[in-house]
Amino acid sequence: MTRPLPAVIAAAQNASDRMADRHTPFVMNDWYVAAFAEEIKEELLGRTLLGRQLVFYRTSTGQVVALEDRCPHRSMPLSAGTLTQDTIVCGYHGLRFNAEGDCIEVPSQANCPKNVGIRSYRTHERGAVVWIWMGEAELADLSKLPPQDWMESGEWERSQGYLSLQGSYVRLHENLLDLTHLSFLHAKSFGTPDYAKAAFESVIGDGQFALLRNVVPTTLPPVWAIPTGLTGQGQAARIVRSEFRSLGLHEVSVTFYDCNLPENERPQFRIRTAHMPTPETATSTHYFIVHGRDFALGNPETTRFMHDQLFVAFQEDVDGLALQEQALASTPPEDLYEFSVVADAPAVAMRRYVLARQRQEAPD
Amino acid sequence: MTRPLPAVIAAAQNASDRMADRHTPFVMNDWYVAAFAEEIKEELLGRTLLGRQLVFYRTSTGQVVALEDRCPHRSMPLSAGTLTQDTIVCGYHGLRFNAEGDCIEVPSQANCPKNVGIRSYRTHERGAVVWIWMGEAELADLSKLPPQDWMESGEWERSQGYLSLQGSYVRLHENLLDLTHLSFLHAKSFGTPDYAKAAFESVIGDGQFALLRNVVPTTLPPVWAIPTGLTGQGQAARIVRSEFRSLGLHEVSVTFYDCNLPENERPQFRIRTAHMPTPETATSTHYFIVHGRDFALGNPETTRFMHDQLFVAFQEDVDGLALQEQALASTPPEDLYEFSVVADAPAVAMRRYVLARQRQEAPD
Amino acid sequence: MTRPLPAVIAAAQNASDRMADRHTPFVMNDWYVAAFAEEIKEELLGRTLLGRQLVFYRTSTGQVVALEDRCPHRSMPLSAGTLTQDTIVCGYHGLRFNAEGDCIEVPSQANCPKNVGIRSYRTHERGAVVWIWMGEAELADLSKLPPQDWMESGEWERSQGYLSLQGSYVRLHENLLDLTHLSFLHAKSFGTPDYAKAAFESVIGDGQFALLRNVVPTTLPPVWAIPTGLTGQGQAARIVRSEFRSLGLHEVSVTFYDCNLPENERPQFRIRTAHMPTPETATSTHYFIVHGRDFALGNPETTRFMHDQLFVAFQEDVDGLALQEQALASTPPEDLYEFSVVADAPAVAMRRYVLARQRQEAPD
Repeated sequence: MTRPLPAVIAAAQNASDRMADRHTPFVMNDWYVAAFAEEIKEELLGRTLLGRQLVFYRTSTGQVVALEDRCPHRSMPLSAGTLTQDTIVCGYHGLRFNAEGDCIEVPSQANCPKNVGIRSYRTHERGAVVWIWMGEAELADLSKLPPQDWMESGEWERSQGYLSLQGSYVRLHENLLDLTHLSFLHAKSFGTPDYAKAAFESVIGDGQFALLRNVVPTTLPPVWAIPTGLTGQGQAARIVRSEFRSLGLHEVSVTFYDCNLPENERPQFRIRTAHMPTPETATSTHYFIVHGRDFALGNPETTRFMHDQLFVAFQEDVDGLALQEQALASTPPEDLYEFSVVADAPAVAMRRYVLARQRQEAPD
Repeated sequence: MTRPLPAVIAAAQNASDRMADRHTPFVMNDWYVAAFAEEIKEELLGRTLLGRQLVFYRTSTGQVVALEDRCPHRSMPLSAGTLTQDTIVCGYHGLRFNAEGDCIEVPSQANCPKNVGIRSYRTHERGAVVWIWMGEAELADLSKLPPQDWMESGEWERSQGYLSLQGSYVRLHENLLDLTHLSFLHAKSFGTPDYAKAAFESVIGDGQFALLRNVVPTTLPPVWAIPTGLTGQGQAARIVRSEFRSLGLHEVSVTFYDCNLPENERPQFRIRTAHMPTPETATSTHYFIVHGRDFALGNPETTRFMHDQLFVAFQEDVDGLALQEQALASTPPEDLYEFSVVADAPAVAMRRYVLARQRQEAPD
Repeated sequence: MTRPLPAVIAAAQNASDRMADRHTPFVMNDWYVAAFAEEIKEELLGRTLLGRQLVFYRTSTGQVVALEDRCPHRSMPLSAGTLTQDTIVCGYHGLRFNAEGDCIEVPSQANCPKNVGIRSYRTHERGAVVWIWMGEAELADLSKLPPQDWMESGEWERSQGYLSLQGSYVRLHENLLDLTHLSFLHAKSFGTPDYAKAAFESVIGDGQFALLRNVVPTTLPPVWAIPTGLTGQGQAARIVRSEFRSLGLHEVSVTFYDCNLPENERPQFRIRTAHMPTPETATSTHYFIVHGRDFALGNPETTRFMHDQLFVAFQEDVDGLALQEQALASTPPEDLYEFSVVADAPAVAMRRYVLARQRQEAPD
C-alpha cells in the first residue's frame, strides 16, 4: 500500500502540468510531414492532419496541392469529388476549386460568387516526403525545416514505411528521446540488456534535445550484426545519437564498429532513421519513417532484411504507446500522476518546450 | 490561401444560424411516417423516432398501436416482451399494458396500481404508410397531412423502399429542394450534365417550397428512356416539380414527353416520388420512399427495372449525405461555415421555416 | 395516451432519486470478489474493478497480489510487463515493483528514487474466490465478509461460472431481490407461471434484505425435477430464501421436497447460489457465480446438467439487464420515471441502503 503521499502526488502532477501532453493544443506554426511524396498522385487523397481534414493532389505539372477537405457550399468532402484539369469538382453540386482554393465555377449559375473559397496550405516536397505548414501562412519559412541531406543523398541506401499510432505525438517524441526503453520494450527485437544501463549524455538546448549513448563493447542484435558482420559476443561498439530536431522530425544516428580492431583500422557502419510524427488527432499520430545506411549499398536483400526487422521494433513502440494512451485515458484524473527519472531529462525538457511553443502561439 | 476573410466567414455563420440544422431540436407537432403499413403486424416492433423509443403492433382488428417502448416499472423495453390478446406483457416482471398504454395487470399483486402507464401515440394508416403524431395530442389534426391521392389511386403503379440515412433529416430535405446536384451526385445514375444549368423557378411560401425546372430538350437516362421509349438524343422533355409538402413529405413530380411531336399529339408520361424522411436521432433518419408512374400499368418488369435503377440513385444521396454529416461533425466549429448560392433559395427558406416551427413550439 | 400526470411522474422521479442507480458512485469500503482463485496464477492478469485498473498475480509462495495497473513513471499498464521473482518489471523502461507496490529498481540509474510507488490492495482468498477491499485500507475488516461456509464445505457439490454484464451492479442486486421475474424473464428456463403470484415475505433490516417465498405445491422445471426425481405435476415444494448479504454477495437458498410424503419422511434437497457482482464500470459488472447442492454428491453428470441449465437462466438475466441498461441510457431524463410495486419493497430498501452507504462514505 505504498501509494505516495498526497503531497508527493500533487508535486508530480504539478510537474506534469508544465509539460505538453495529449491535452495540449497542436503547435500549428511548424513543418510536419503530410505524406510520402509517392502517395500524392494525380488523384484526390483525403487525410486528417492536426485535427483538420485536408485533401491532397498533384497537378499535371507535378505540384503538390493541399486544401481544406470541405466544400464551403454544403460541406461535402472535396476528396469525394473529382479531379479535372488540376481543379476539384465537388461531388455534390459541382462547385469547382482551383489549386489556390478559389471557387471558380458554380454550375447552377452564370457567375461564380466572389469571396467563396477554402484555405490552401503551403507544402514543400523534399526527397521522400512532402512537408506541410498549417499555421499562419506568413510565418512559413523553409529555414525552419531541419537539414536532412542524407535523406536525399546517393551515399545512403534508404527504405521507408508508415505506422498508424493510436496515441499522442508528444508521447512518441518522448519515447524517441529516452532510449532506455530499448532493453525492455524492444527486448525481443533490437534492444539488448546492457542498453538501459549504459552511460549517456544529454544535450538540452532551446528547441534542441539529444541523447548520446555509447554502448561499448556490446553484442549487436541480428538486424545490425548480420549486415555488418559484427556478429561476435561483445565484439561491437554501438554509438548512438538520438535527437529531437523539430516537432516533425526526430533523427537517430548510430555508428557501429569492431572494438577489437585498432582505432585507425576500423570500418564504420552508419545508419540513420528519420522518425517523423504528425498529429492526426489529439490521440492519434501519423508515423512516417525513413531509414538509411551508408554500407552494403545497392543490396536490396539487405535493405529488405533490415527494413523488416526494424519495423517489427517500431511496431512494438506503436503497440506500447497505444497501451499507454489507453491507460492515460481511463485513469481518473485524481489518480493520474507520473514521476520522472534522471534519464527523462531530455524528454521532460522537450515536453516543456512543446508546451511553451503552444502557449506562445495561442496565449489564452 | 483564399480562405475568406473573417468578416465574410462570420456573415456566413450568422446566416446558417438562422436555418435549422442537426443541432435544432425536433419539431414534434407534425405528422411523420412511422413505418410502411406492411411492417406493422401482430407482433412487437421497436423503432426509434424523433429520439424516442417506440413499440408498434397491430391489434387483432387491424388497428395500429404505438406506445413508449419502456416499461414504467423497471425500464425493460416492452418490444422485448410478448404480445397477447392485443396487450403487451413485459418480459421482465409481466406487467401488462393495453393499447392505450394503461397498466392493467401486475402479476405479483391482486390489484393493479392506478396511475401507472406509458404514453400512447396517435397514428393514421393511409395507403402504404402509417403516420404518427408525437407532439401535443390535442393538436393532432388529420387536415395537416398533405394530400397524397396518387399514393392510393389505382391509376398509378407503385413500388416502395426504405433507406437508413446516417445524417440529419434537415439535410435530406435540403437535398431534395436543390436538384442541381443531379448532374454531379447522380452523374452515373439519373443525372444528366444539362440538368444543373437548366432554368428553374422557385416557389417560396409559408411552409411551401418548390422548385420547377424544365429541361427541354434533353436526353433521358435509361431509367426513364427505356420505359417511355424516349431513347433518342435530345428527344425528350423533362418537366420537374420538386416540392416540400411538410416536414414528413417531399414530393417530386416529373412529366416526360417527346419534343418532336406537336403539342396536341404528345403522350405524357408521369412519375411521382414521395420522399418521406423521419428523424431517428439528430444525425440519423428513416428514409421511406414510395414511387409511382401512370404508364405501363400492370407491368411488373418495368416496376422492378425502375425501382432498382431509382434506388441506386437514392443510395447515392444517402451515401453523400452521410459524408456531409461526417464533415459537419468533425470540423471545428470556428472553421465551419457554408455559403449559399442562388439555387439554394428554396432550401434556405425551408430551413428557416423549420427553425421557426421549432422555436414556435419550444420558445426557450 | 395514459402517460401519468406530471405530478405523478415527478413523485416517481423523486422516489428514484433516493435509490442508488447507475449514476451513484461506487461504495469503496466493502469486500468485492476480484476473481476466482483459479484465475490468479503466477502470471500477470489485468482487470478493471470499481472503475480502477488493477493487475493481479500470485507469488511463488501462493499469495495473491493486487496492484494499480499503471506504471507511475510513464503510465504503461504493468499487466503488459513481466513477472519476475514475485515482482513486476514494467514493459516500457523496466522499472520494477514489489508486491507492496514499491518501486525497487530503475534500470537506467544506480539508485531507485524514494517515494515512487503504486497502491496495493488488500485481498483475501477464501474457497473458490478472491475478495478485494478497494476503499480505505484501515477500514478493511474480515468480519465484514459475509459467512459462506457452504462454499468451502465438503457436504456441498459445487460448480462456478462467470458472466459479463453490460449493466449496473445495482440493477443486478435489484433483479436478485425481486424473483417475481422468474415467471417472465425465465419463462423458458427455471421460472414457472405460479412463481410470480406465490405469497412472499420480506425481511428488511439495516443492510440485510431478503425475500422468502414458498411455492407449494408446484411443478419443478427440469433443472431440479430431474436431479431430485420430483418430476410429477404439482408434486414438489419449492422453498426459497433470496438474500442480499453484502454489496458483493447475494445468496439464494432453495429447499425442495415431495409434498405427497408425510412431513417427517420427506427427504430434503437443498441448493445454494452465491451471486457475486463486482462493478467493473458504472454500467458494466463482473458477475461471479458459485452454485452448490447437498445431494447427488460425487456425480459429475448431475453437476454438469444443472450448471448448464442454470447458466442458460443466468444469461437471460444478463441479456435482460443489458436491454434495461440501454433503455435507461437512451431515455431523455425528463421522460425517465419508474414506479415500484409491492414486491419491490426489499429491492427499494436495498437501493436506498446502497445510496446511504455511498453518501456516508463521500458526503459531498
